[in-house]
Amino acid sequence: MNKLLMLPGPTIVPPDVLLAMAKPVIGHRSKEFSEIFEDTVEKLKKVFITENDTFIITGSGTAVMDMALANILKPKDKVLTIITGNFGERFANIVNSYKGEAIKLEYEWGDMANPEDVKEILEKEKDIKAVTVVHNETSTGARNPIKEIGEIVKDYDALYIVDTISSLGGDYVNVDKFNIDICVTGSQKCLAAPPGLAGITVSEKAWEVINKNDDKVGFYLDLKAYKKYFDEKKQNPYTPAVNLIYALNKALDLVLEEGIENRVKRHEKLAKATRAGLEEMGIELFAKEEARSVTVTSAKYPEGVNDKLREIMNKKYNIVLAGGQKHLSGKIFRIGHMGICGEKEILATLSCLELALKELNFEVQGSGVEKAKEIFKE
Amino acid sequence: MNKLLMLPGPTIVPPDVLLAMAKPVIGHRSKEFSEIFEDTVEKLKKVFITENDTFIITGSGTAVMDMALANILKPKDKVLTIITGNFGERFANIVNSYKGEAIKLEYEWGDMANPEDVKEILEKEKDIKAVTVVHNETSTGARNPIKEIGEIVKDYDALYIVDTISSLGGDYVNVDKFNIDICVTGSQKCLAAPPGLAGITVSEKAWEVINKNDDKVGFYLDLKAYKKYFDEKKQNPYTPAVNLIYALNKALDLVLEEGIENRVKRHEKLAKATRAGLEEMGIELFAKEEARSVTVTSAKYPEGVNDKLREIMNKKYNIVLAGGQKHLSGKIFRIGHMGICGEKEILATLSCLELALKELNFEVQGSGVEKAKEIFKE
Repeated sequence: MNKLLMLPGPTIVPPDVLLAMAKPVIGHRSKEFSEIFEDTVEKLKKVFITENDTFIITGSGTAVMDMALANILKPKDKVLTIITGNFGERFANIVNSYKGEAIKLEYEWGDMANPEDVKEILEKEKDIKAVTVVHNETSTGARNPIKEIGEIVKDYDALYIVDTISSLGGDYVNVDKFNIDICVTGSQKCLAAPPGLAGITVSEKAWEVINKNDDKVGFYLDLKAYKKYFDEKKQNPYTPAVNLIYALNKALDLVLEEGIENRVKRHEKLAKATRAGLEEMGIELFAKEEARSVTVTSAKYPEGVNDKLREIMNKKYNIVLAGGQKHLSGKIFRIGHMGICGEKEILATLSCLELALKELNFEVQGSGVEKAKEIFKE
Repeated sequence: MNKLLMLPGPTIVPPDVLLAMAKPVIGHRSKEFSEIFEDTVEKLKKVFITENDTFIITGSGTAVMDMALANILKPKDKVLTIITGNFGERFANIVNSYKGEAIKLEYEWGDMANPEDVKEILEKEKDIKAVTVVHNETSTGARNPIKEIGEIVKDYDALYIVDTISSLGGDYVNVDKFNIDICVTGSQKCLAAPPGLAGITVSEKAWEVINKNDDKVGFYLDLKAYKKYFDEKKQNPYTPAVNLIYALNKALDLVLEEGIENRVKRHEKLAKATRAGLEEMGIELFAKEEARSVTVTSAKYPEGVNDKLREIMNKKYNIVLAGGQKHLSGKIFRIGHMGICGEKEILATLSCLELALKELNFEVQGSGVEKAKEIFKE
């Protein structure tokens, strides 16, 4: 169990949060639970920076991605899905799963969307129900300009749906300022809570669509049921993962104590040090420079190096890195620097990477760890 | 936090299980996690007593009730929904949420279904896609004869869907012998794990329907994705609640160590003592005698007594009981005796009930606690 998780989720969970989870279960229909639950939702709203209705559901990030679309779609509805990686693609798959029509705006993996392209499509196709975008594309280590896209979408009828699963609490997200109608996140990434909970915000504009949607199907992910129970009782309609709520509440305390701005700056610095360290060693970064994520860094395996690198990192050095997804499998590796990750974790990771790369006969150019130290000294 | 949960879920979770949950998170795509996950699924199969495919998903019991229907239904499909309480009704609501047609076979709350009625409808209506039944109707403290109904449904094309959310691990369930095509359960009832996970089994007959269903909608609850990931990697398609899996694994160990037969006998004895104790005090039981659950006992408030009784039990004696749902609110109370509940919890509950009833000026007839002791001595 003594593994250092440098994954783009789940991330290291602080002991205080793990122990909060181990408290006895209480009834989910009790006043005590309503108080804890409401408090957790209020804290999450502060992190989303929103006045919109916010719900916490038991499920993965995919559950709230599904929920975002399930509640607004009718068959044949058009959704503009911005795709820069695996999770952007997932939104399109969800649209199709409800027999909607996904209009795919695709970019090369590792790149980011151009807001002007979004505008062009919204001008051309007048009946687009929603635009989906993944803020931080975990699969590629690239991020999308969600603020700028929001500036465009707000002038159309389309709802603006943003996945901040691997960015909220690590990169700058402001639901209200960015005009996000439905924003979704997960507990196990930058928030540094255990996996199993997911958050979703719903704007007035989104409620108008949801309330008019008589063609909605499904039960567990029905937003109206969540709203009814929360408004009336500060509870969920179906039994929530009580202990995970304890944990998320504590994890959100830690986020708010640090302050969102400080937290984003910390993530930016970790990203900068990681990127500089890798490049110093002679490793090429994968994501395009202007698109690079501050919560996950992706890098290409140099010639002669493959997933064996991750195996050495894991087995010999107990540091867990992620590989590539889909067509990038075996071609890139990904380092998550999210949540409570700090200088020592980055320096340990870069140091061990140097050892592991040498073991694989890759000639490490400069000292990545020294480069990173310089950045941390700034 | 020092509350004795005598709820029909969530139930008391043993400290070992709570502490298992507090172990550090590991990556859900790691070999280590696959091993723990597969082991947990194998143990759950032993409790379900089935060779059928079994999946564990992150969500509440309602999520797997939804999943059971979402994967088989097309619009207008007929489903025979046996309704003896709130959760039987929920199945009908789920059918309707997918634009199916719920044929309701309704009984008075507190009563149980008559298998002959099921046969009659299956004979009359030839194109019924599935029959749903709730084994243990948590809302009323009554149970349905799922074995006998299974004997009938097996001779028809209809799939047999059974909710064992508040019975599995407490009452006798045998998925394969009872011919159950899709069986669902939750972690937080008789299995005595924390809430947040749910289990579902799928028979060959059910897979045939699922694989032919091109009209299926939705994404998160798509059984085919769960099967693909489990078959290939012993993982879930979307990030599972890793720590809850640790907890469920440990909780299932405790179930299997006790042995399912011993566990059912223990629950039967707890139910017998609870019922006898209440009746001795002069409290009338709610569920019909032949239908009474072995995991939850429902009782009518005597004249002059209302939910104030539960308030005294909670505030003064730190024992949490459940009230009535829907039209039974304020009319009945429910005592859960599930999971790791034992003699001492029943005796404490009955003793405190006597005190609380006296405080409400109800003339307690005989000693409920003495009556229960007699039964435990047997």
